[in-house]
Amino acid sequence: MSLDALTADLRAFAAERGWEKFHRPKNLAMALAGEVGELVAELQWLTPEECESLTDAQRDAVGAEMADVLMYLTRLADVLGVDLETATRAKMARNAGRFPVPGPGEEASVVPVQA
Amino acid sequence: MSLDALTADLRAFAAERGWEKFHRPKNLAMALAGEVGELVAELQWLTPEECESLTDAQRDAVGAEMADVLMYLTRLADVLGVDLETATRAKMARNAGRFPVPGPGEEASVVPVQA
Amino acid sequence: MSLDALTADLRAFAAERGWEKFHRPKNLAMALAGEVGELVAELQWLTPEECESLTDAQRDAVGAEMADVLMYLTRLADVLGVDLETATRAKMARNAGRFPVPGPGEEASVVPVQA
Amino acid sequence: MSLDALTADLRAFAAERGWEKFHRPKNLAMALAGEVGELVAELQWLTPEECESLTDAQRDAVGAEMADVLMYLTRLADVLGVDLETATRAKMARNAGRFPVPGPGEEASVVPVQA
Repeated sequence: MSLDALTADLRAFAAERGWEKFHRPKNLAMALAGEVGELVAELQWLTPEECESLTDAQRDAVGAEMADVLMYLTRLADVLGVDLETATRAKMARNAGRFPVPGPGEEASVVPVQA
Repeated sequence: MSLDALTADLRAFAAERGWEKFHRPKNLAMALAGEVGELVAELQWLTPEECESLTDAQRDAVGAEMADVLMYLTRLADVLGVDLETATRAKMARNAGRFPVPGPGEEASVVPVQA
Repeated sequence: MSLDALTADLRAFAAERGWEKFHRPKNLAMALAGEVGELVAELQWLTPEECESLTDAQRDAVGAEMADVLMYLTRLADVLGVDLETATRAKMARNAGRFPVPGPGEEASVVPVQA
Repeated sequence: MSLDALTADLRAFAAERGWEKFHRPKNLAMALAGEVGELVAELQWLTPEECESLTDAQRDAVGAEMADVLMYLTRLADVLGVDLETATRAKMARNAGRFPVPGPGEEASVVPVQA
């Protein structure tokens, strides 16, 4: 799925329903936070082991919340004029500098080495 | 940008750095919540009007947080075995039923008409 | 610490700084989401075992974020006219019905038995 | 309401139901994020003006979510050994330095003047 296609579909979906007045930046950011809350809630009581072996029903439920997160993120990017692809590629490039590949014998770390 | 390409790049990035032990489902869900928090924080004190006219610096800052959200979402989907494209298309189809297009004279509503 | 005392102190703190225009409900709700994100981020890469044995530095860092969450929650309640004590006691009473104490031999469950 | 009393009640409530195995730090942090998501969702589509004039039903709904946030925050503090009162008073003292009271003619700002 291309983000551009999803962006266009979500824009049309909102336009057909007169949702532009609701789809303002702060509202969409709040909706995004709400949906991430729903996603996290699907996993909160599971053990780490249970999370590695979700049932189909559990996976579908989590997937539905992940879809909501992706849709609000994409819609917010569109409304704010953020090019999500460019921003993501730029952040990955920056991360490559902040998190160099460990050398032989070096331990994996999620702590960045530079700002 | 295709989600499949991003998924592959993030998987390789994590593998090169030995991050698989950190990139477990609950950790990634928590990281996602953390990044959405950072995104929301970029807008929290702005008025609705200021949000409609972000400066380039503000847009870049929000874009960087949105990139982090997208990356953790994509990585979590990969680790959980969720097909994000399929889940998103399915949710959009379901939403079309929950939120019918208003008829002439009907008011826009973000309240679903069916579960 | 009584919530009433904290509420009064936060109200005065905001008033002295002319913050009432920033401390509007949607802004405060967003700030709360941002701070919970910072709190979650303090624990996200730790194992469950590491979380049970935080260093003093880790505990202080988490405590500082928890303080921010409490302050925004309390401030938001004040601005919205929500009596947090009454609401909490009411919710606990409701929870007692939704989550009855298990009988002998019954397994602990975090799944509610009634709406 | 004193936080100490709430802490004791929540500890007893959990103990009676055998919830200690579920009430581990990462789980509680995730539950907190989930509840803040539910709280934010109550306000996300309202205009700033509608938020200033909530109906009783809306206020009750928001209050119930705020109660859930307070309960999980308090429970998490207890499980982590964080003294929430001490942490909050310390953070308020630090904020007094970061956000000095503006002088005559100075504009209100939510931007801290020092780290």
